Amino acid sequence: MKAVGVVVEYNPFHNGHFYHISQSKSKANADVVIAVMSGHFLQRGEPALLDKWHRTKMALNNGVDLVIELPYVFCTGHATSFAEGAIQLLEAIGCTKFAFGSEEGSIDPFLNTFHLLKKHEEQYNALIKQYVTTGISYPQSLYKAYEELRQNEENQTIDLSQPNNILGYHYIEAAKRLKLEIEPMTIPRIQAGFHDDINTQSTIASATGIRKALFEQHSLHEIKQFVPDESYNQMESWQNKYASFINWETFWPYLRFSILRNTPEQLTQFADVSEGIEFALVKAAKKSETFSQFMNQIKSKRYTWTRLQRMVTHIYTGITKEQLHYSKMPSYIRLLGMTKNGQAYLSQNKKQFQLPLISRVASTNDPMLQLDIRATDMYALGVELALGKQIASDYQTPPIRV
Amino acid sequence: MKAVGVVVEYNPFHNGHFYHISQSKSKANADVVIAVMSGHFLQRGEPALLDKWHRTKMALNNGVDLVIELPYVFCTGHATSFAEGAIQLLEAIGCTKFAFGSEEGSIDPFLNTFHLLKKHEEQYNALIKQYVTTGISYPQSLYKAYEELRQNEENQTIDLSQPNNILGYHYIEAAKRLKLEIEPMTIPRIQAGFHDDINTQSTIASATGIRKALFEQHSLHEIKQFVPDESYNQMESWQNKYASFINWETFWPYLRFSILRNTPEQLTQFADVSEGIEFALVKAAKKSETFSQFMNQIKSKRYTWTRLQRMVTHIYTGITKEQLHYSKMPSYIRLLGMTKNGQAYLSQNKKQFQLPLISRVASTNDPMLQLDIRATDMYALGVELALGKQIASDYQTPPIRV
Repeated sequence: MKAVGVVVEYNPFHNGHFYHISQSKSKANADVVIAVMSGHFLQRGEPALLDKWHRTKMALNNGVDLVIELPYVFCTGHATSFAEGAIQLLEAIGCTKFAFGSEEGSIDPFLNTFHLLKKHEEQYNALIKQYVTTGISYPQSLYKAYEELRQNEENQTIDLSQPNNILGYHYIEAAKRLKLEIEPMTIPRIQAGFHDDINTQSTIASATGIRKALFEQHSLHEIKQFVPDESYNQMESWQNKYASFINWETFWPYLRFSILRNTPEQLTQFADVSEGIEFALVKAAKKSETFSQFMNQIKSKRYTWTRLQRMVTHIYTGITKEQLHYSKMPSYIRLLGMTKNGQAYLSQNKKQFQLPLISRVASTNDPMLQLDIRATDMYALGVELALGKQIASDYQTPPIRV
Repeated sequence: MKAVGVVVEYNPFHNGHFYHISQSKSKANADVVIAVMSGHFLQRGEPALLDKWHRTKMALNNGVDLVIELPYVFCTGHATSFAEGAIQLLEAIGCTKFAFGSEEGSIDPFLNTFHLLKKHEEQYNALIKQYVTTGISYPQSLYKAYEELRQNEENQTIDLSQPNNILGYHYIEAAKRLKLEIEPMTIPRIQAGFHDDINTQSTIASATGIRKALFEQHSLHEIKQFVPDESYNQMESWQNKYASFINWETFWPYLRFSILRNTPEQLTQFADVSEGIEFALVKAAKKSETFSQFMNQIKSKRYTWTRLQRMVTHIYTGITKEQLHYSKMPSYIRLLGMTKNGQAYLSQNKKQFQLPLISRVASTNDPMLQLDIRATDMYALGVELALGKQIASDYQTPPIRV
């Protein structure tokens, strides 16, 4: 059985994801689709709308055959770490290809970009440095340096101002740098924009647009047209039980409490909290009634929104720098769910997997896994405190079967 | 002006306290009564029923002229540390005498006990050790060793099975050991028992009895007869605003959250969390819906209820072993409130105080004071999360004037 891998957050699963999976499966000529999915905290430093069990069901009911969890270490990391964790897991579970969505839509320009940057690495770094010293932000400097290098390149390269191109580039870079055998593929994204508002004339919207509509309009019905029925059913079942979807506003009283239990100095023990920001965090937390007030007080040119959100994620989960030493290598394959087809794949192939397959977390003391469990526990506590209901725990939940 | 000192928690201020103050003032022939009072967390490892500002007003309206705060380091410490902090503060602010309530009621037996134990210190320690090795608990061993020594003593000594005698003995021991000039006095307690239920035929009840009635009967009216009117008014004003008095049950969801943000190993960083208990704390917190369920799971012969409550106090406030190095010496006199009479005393005497007088916390960075501020912040956060209302902060509250 041939497997194609995808890297996902499904926050929530929408029609664009459905399209991506079916395209990936057919273009890769694969029998099985394997998704490596973030758990309860996502790459932009946010808690997921709904728990990983509901999101796993969304995936399994819409064409994914196996869902494995991207460990907390990677799913809350910067783009390089995120990509390295995810692509290594897909290789470890035996995928011969992985497929990502991109604005670019064909793979050669990605490879050309990789070779261009590798060939001119020194020049590229010098250009970045040069732009940074003129006072331009780091991401902007990267972009300008790249544009300069790219001018004289004959081969077609990608536009790195497009968010999905950037993400895809990191996957390719990870696969190449780590010399993995897995082959990259890209599927053109159906344009919905990225941070766009939803467009009621379409059935495609970005996850960002869907989340925005959910929180602004407080109505699940508003977003029904953008998600497959099975995804909608999971969201409805979540809403019936918990009444509300999760974002940082939901958890704010407890995030605030977590921040204020520390001196500024103590805050620097938590992962990604860089020296200098700790005083602002405490000061802003004291004064803020909402997460948005808080963020508006701490954001600055120096710190991107995402970077700040990752800091507060680690403060909320209580995970320290020492615990989150950025491992470059996942140490297990955590199975969240499977279809019958996925199960058949496991039976046939698991002896060849490069990492141990974990179906029940009680069976191991792996420190990387302990962080995943902590993240689930803290997400669960937030849900319980804010909404008065419990979610399933890692210890008590066997892989979902569909 | 002559000042007499008292060591108090006023949780809440009741008729017995009123009696003690008036007796102390007249027997000491004093012009001024100075109370050193615990802040928001008390010696038995519990949050106070109502905040220190309300409790300060209770005191100032009932015969106390100056209320100063016992720093967190001491007020959450074991009896020796508590006593040393309190008596040193009373000496530092110029009290010539301090008065404590006791079952014994006269001072000589206390002094005789002190001299007896000092004289036979080695024998006493050997006896304690002997009893401990037979499997008797440490407090019981202390008591038995003392009883044995006391048998052959001609002078009258105190009964150390009585809780207020024990407390008083610690005050005297502190004053003697630290060679303070302040002189001890004792006022006989009006018997209410200690852990007794309230007796509706009387106007005297213990604070423990009053708290029990408050939480069990949910009616302030039930305890009206046991507290002075001005104390009742403060309680009524608290209840009108916050709807409920505070105990660990009120804060339990946030205490639980605080415990579960840590690995067992990380819990041992907090003050008083002794090695070995950390696993039980996490396990019990996971399973418990109430504080009482939690405590019933962790209590054992080895750990007294008070000791366990002190551990969770420090976990809740986030105060570490490193921060709470038991200082033997207070470094400031924190003024919480004063009457006109108290203010006159300050004007006349403050130049002779042995420690700096702090009226506004913003004026100093003393690390001991930072812990008091943290304790207030965490008490305030608990009140805000549980009851939806704010309390006064240390930074914004000048000393109360009555």
